[in-house]
Amino acid sequence: MASICGTDVHIFNWDDWAKNRIKPPLIYGHEFAGEVVKVGSNVRFVKVGEFVSGECHIACGHCYNCRNGLAHICLNTKIFGVDRDGAFAEYISIPESNVWHNDPSLPPELCSVQDPLGNAVHTVFSTDFVGRDVAVIGLGPIGAMCVAILRTCGASRIFAIGRKNPFRIKLAKDAGAHFALSSVEDDVEGIVKKETDGKGVDVVLETAGTPDAVQLGLSILRPGGKISLLGVYSKPLTIDLSKSVVFKYATIQGINGRLMYDTWYRMAGLYRIPEFREKISKIITHRYKFEQFFEAMEKMRSGESGKVVMYMER
Amino acid sequence: MASICGTDVHIFNWDDWAKNRIKPPLIYGHEFAGEVVKVGSNVRFVKVGEFVSGECHIACGHCYNCRNGLAHICLNTKIFGVDRDGAFAEYISIPESNVWHNDPSLPPELCSVQDPLGNAVHTVFSTDFVGRDVAVIGLGPIGAMCVAILRTCGASRIFAIGRKNPFRIKLAKDAGAHFALSSVEDDVEGIVKKETDGKGVDVVLETAGTPDAVQLGLSILRPGGKISLLGVYSKPLTIDLSKSVVFKYATIQGINGRLMYDTWYRMAGLYRIPEFREKISKIITHRYKFEQFFEAMEKMRSGESGKVVMYMER
Amino acid sequence: MASICGTDVHIFNWDDWAKNRIKPPLIYGHEFAGEVVKVGSNVRFVKVGEFVSGECHIACGHCYNCRNGLAHICLNTKIFGVDRDGAFAEYISIPESNVWHNDPSLPPELCSVQDPLGNAVHTVFSTDFVGRDVAVIGLGPIGAMCVAILRTCGASRIFAIGRKNPFRIKLAKDAGAHFALSSVEDDVEGIVKKETDGKGVDVVLETAGTPDAVQLGLSILRPGGKISLLGVYSKPLTIDLSKSVVFKYATIQGINGRLMYDTWYRMAGLYRIPEFREKISKIITHRYKFEQFFEAMEKMRSGESGKVVMYMER
Amino acid sequence: MASICGTDVHIFNWDDWAKNRIKPPLIYGHEFAGEVVKVGSNVRFVKVGEFVSGECHIACGHCYNCRNGLAHICLNTKIFGVDRDGAFAEYISIPESNVWHNDPSLPPELCSVQDPLGNAVHTVFSTDFVGRDVAVIGLGPIGAMCVAILRTCGASRIFAIGRKNPFRIKLAKDAGAHFALSSVEDDVEGIVKKETDGKGVDVVLETAGTPDAVQLGLSILRPGGKISLLGVYSKPLTIDLSKSVVFKYATIQGINGRLMYDTWYRMAGLYRIPEFREKISKIITHRYKFEQFFEAMEKMRSGESGKVVMYMER
Repeated sequence: MASICGTDVHIFNWDDWAKNRIKPPLIYGHEFAGEVVKVGSNVRFVKVGEFVSGECHIACGHCYNCRNGLAHICLNTKIFGVDRDGAFAEYISIPESNVWHNDPSLPPELCSVQDPLGNAVHTVFSTDFVGRDVAVIGLGPIGAMCVAILRTCGASRIFAIGRKNPFRIKLAKDAGAHFALSSVEDDVEGIVKKETDGKGVDVVLETAGTPDAVQLGLSILRPGGKISLLGVYSKPLTIDLSKSVVFKYATIQGINGRLMYDTWYRMAGLYRIPEFREKISKIITHRYKFEQFFEAMEKMRSGESGKVVMYMER
Repeated sequence: MASICGTDVHIFNWDDWAKNRIKPPLIYGHEFAGEVVKVGSNVRFVKVGEFVSGECHIACGHCYNCRNGLAHICLNTKIFGVDRDGAFAEYISIPESNVWHNDPSLPPELCSVQDPLGNAVHTVFSTDFVGRDVAVIGLGPIGAMCVAILRTCGASRIFAIGRKNPFRIKLAKDAGAHFALSSVEDDVEGIVKKETDGKGVDVVLETAGTPDAVQLGLSILRPGGKISLLGVYSKPLTIDLSKSVVFKYATIQGINGRLMYDTWYRMAGLYRIPEFREKISKIITHRYKFEQFFEAMEKMRSGESGKVVMYMER
Repeated sequence: MASICGTDVHIFNWDDWAKNRIKPPLIYGHEFAGEVVKVGSNVRFVKVGEFVSGECHIACGHCYNCRNGLAHICLNTKIFGVDRDGAFAEYISIPESNVWHNDPSLPPELCSVQDPLGNAVHTVFSTDFVGRDVAVIGLGPIGAMCVAILRTCGASRIFAIGRKNPFRIKLAKDAGAHFALSSVEDDVEGIVKKETDGKGVDVVLETAGTPDAVQLGLSILRPGGKISLLGVYSKPLTIDLSKSVVFKYATIQGINGRLMYDTWYRMAGLYRIPEFREKISKIITHRYKFEQFFEAMEKMRSGESGKVVMYMER
Repeated sequence: MASICGTDVHIFNWDDWAKNRIKPPLIYGHEFAGEVVKVGSNVRFVKVGEFVSGECHIACGHCYNCRNGLAHICLNTKIFGVDRDGAFAEYISIPESNVWHNDPSLPPELCSVQDPLGNAVHTVFSTDFVGRDVAVIGLGPIGAMCVAILRTCGASRIFAIGRKNPFRIKLAKDAGAHFALSSVEDDVEGIVKKETDGKGVDVVLETAGTPDAVQLGLSILRPGGKISLLGVYSKPLTIDLSKSVVFKYATIQGINGRLMYDTWYRMAGLYRIPEFREKISKIITHRYKFEQFFEAMEKMRSGESGKVVMYMER
């Protein structure tokens, strides 16, 4: 079982980013779940037959970041599916330290999507969101996952804000958003202001990756609030620091990857909640056989999907 | 609308604590919700006709604690219903700063119980519980409220542990506990160990108020975990600090009151979630007219209740 | 005793900001220390004869921010010396809640500068700086105070970075900076990189108020680090969010005012340390009689000063 | 270069603890600094000739604790010098992951004592001590190190509290305590109360390891304060939880080991401060040749010492 990340689409499209970053030949794909068929002679904690997934950042274990709880931004990191062969294949080889033991009662597809779900968990848990008002900007699969987490974990009012893709706005609504809005068609600022009695949201999670989205996020954030950025921004942001950050006493935090392995344990904790499993299942909108790789990619490119997974028949 | 706290039962029983603490004549009762009928001439933010409740700790605003975010343990605090006249009456007078504006869409009984619910919110939020395994020890109304909060806010596995009152064990089950256990009849340590693969719970919330309960809590706590104590302990605890705290790298935190007013805002945030309202409604098991005061007190004393509220007919 | 803030210079200069913000006639000045000569009839905690200073933000006590530990960004705040009469006068009247009781053993000038020192304390303590490498950008009085705090409180390596005012670069050196650099004349990035073995600083405190300074701060910040902004930025910042924030896993926090009153208590704690008193005394470079007001202002405008205080002879 | 820990004295004395824990033959000793003479074939980050020390906890890297930032309490931990051969020898072999690269400019004896200094750093940094009043109870080498850290890092008032060993009380005074007291001869509670205007200390660091010391700590702790326990307690503590913890809103945290490797990095940051190096040098009161092992042990047993180090002549 493997699933398709936005990064995989960039590689498939062979765009500028891919041309600069990827050195072919390379098997890509970094989201997966599968059975262990072989282990190396020094492996102590993983056994043949176990049902596992893998954290895609292979950290050196020795740099400043690795030794200070920040292995996900290891200075010498290698990512499988990007820097070395990945998961769009019958077999994948990863270091023991990157193996995650799945709960055998979990459906494989829920295990395969733990990489992006981990991004979402990491982003949500970088903020103080329980009992608070939260906006999620950007409603791709990770944005929808953020909504599902927030709804499962006691956020007060969840404002999900997309651009104008009705499929994805509906996906966020179904994931539990109290308000699912279009930044193009709805008066987002007005609605947030009205619903929060003029306060604004306590937390913004930005997953869209555009400067406009960050500006919108800062404008609806209450004084003293926090905005976490998971997006990748191809254009620079021009920002009025005094108004939007200093006088607002706002905090902006950049997020990437997943905490190794705090995020994975917390995700496993959430996966024990049946309602949460259901919510994530619904965000997986399309399932293909591995032989339908091109179809799966096209669906992912269309924007008419949530998460897309591929499986092998046996 | 007023509701009955355990403290009120102590006063009703006129036990040793009450004899030492209370100076009659005194109107007791400190949990309420009602309409403002009159305001003083210096009052700026409260208006006649508003639907309000009140924080019972009247803080001086000037001591070290008040000026460092700890007004709930103000060094000069006065509690209405204990140190001055309280809420078991047609009218109550409180300082403007202690008024809490209720959401008009909330049922009055949900507003009346915000004092104990605030205790529970304060206790739960003193820990890192989301996606984690949590034990609640002591299943009175506040213990049941802790369970409801945990279930609403994404705790992974909730172990509710009472002694042997089936009414209250069932109450906790209905509030959302995954395991509702009797410390007398069930092998609590064995069950927790088995269900958490030997790890133990990440968090313990102790509301029973007995040394035995604390010992049990420490024994099921995982290394590096945290136990928060809301109970009032009439007997001392004898504890093996090396084993239970130092080598376990455990944290013990005493809790009382409610953060003024972080806890109230977070509680209001939770009350916007319909499922949460429902859960708390079910913990209010008995409703009496104010004229049935003695009946209400007897019910509260029986242990065969959750929260007990009293209302005035108009 | 009163001291001159940059804000006072804006008012003195009657620049655009002042024209928009200030409604004359107004007595300005908001940094002071003095003796209480009279108290109102409802005042309970302040007595005639006491030696006090004052927090200039008069908060409403009732808004969301006031009730959540953020009174310094009260939604209804009034600032004395800006919105109502201030301290450049024989007498000033302030609410009881804004009075700070000074340690009688402190020299008045150290008490007068607690407003800007509090800004510096607030900024420094918004970060995890002890035993860490820290850069302070902007070497006006508040920047120099940041250096003094860091040196007193165990920062590992302190890089003080000014533009090209030798007086102020020397001031920062004397306050305890390990490296006092000019962003114009020194290769700041190269020096920081070399001294930290390529890591960068863990913390940046930005007090200069220019977009360039923020860019410099982000470029020398290590992955996973934090930059706190106290500056007022008249121009917008254009920023590559992906590189400087997201992939860097960086945190940006806007700071203003002082925590009421956590910051004041911590500042009082530091003032008990004799070495710290000495360091702050040296940052007060000029002392004038109140009659020399224009001279004092000119000195402050010249940039050839640290903090400037004025006193009344009796 | 090696240094002697209290644990080594237990083994030397062959007391009950040692008989139960140690399986001879064993080379003990776990504090050291030395030169790398050989590395295994898989070692990537350590080179022959480097000047290193070592973290004595060999963690499995795979258990819940290891993967959640708590490797120092790894569920499968082995300690060199206790569970396998240690440092009282010409050579020691340790895993690559446990190697700490020393700053070559540091005197070897300062590097050797990083294990206990790390305990002290870990304990101090588990609290909010900067600008606050702190009591250190227990004035062995680690207690004295706590004092040195606090003084270097901006604690406001430091109360060092021993029993009645004048040598060690003086050691703490020299390390920077503002008050160096005997719990037997001085009225500690009275002095703390007087000096803090009745407030009590904000933080207690307990390193003595006796129930009496914990009781004393709780009695001088202010409401809302924190006590961190590093001691090993051979007797149980009987405690009035309501008074000392719940109504006091106090936090008790057990501490052991050192964070791997946050603590080591922070310690290295402090070691860059010359005044700190000096303070720790003074706590090393006795230096012996390795051939004088029995003399060194006797000195350590006498209580008439701070830290004792042993060196090899070449």
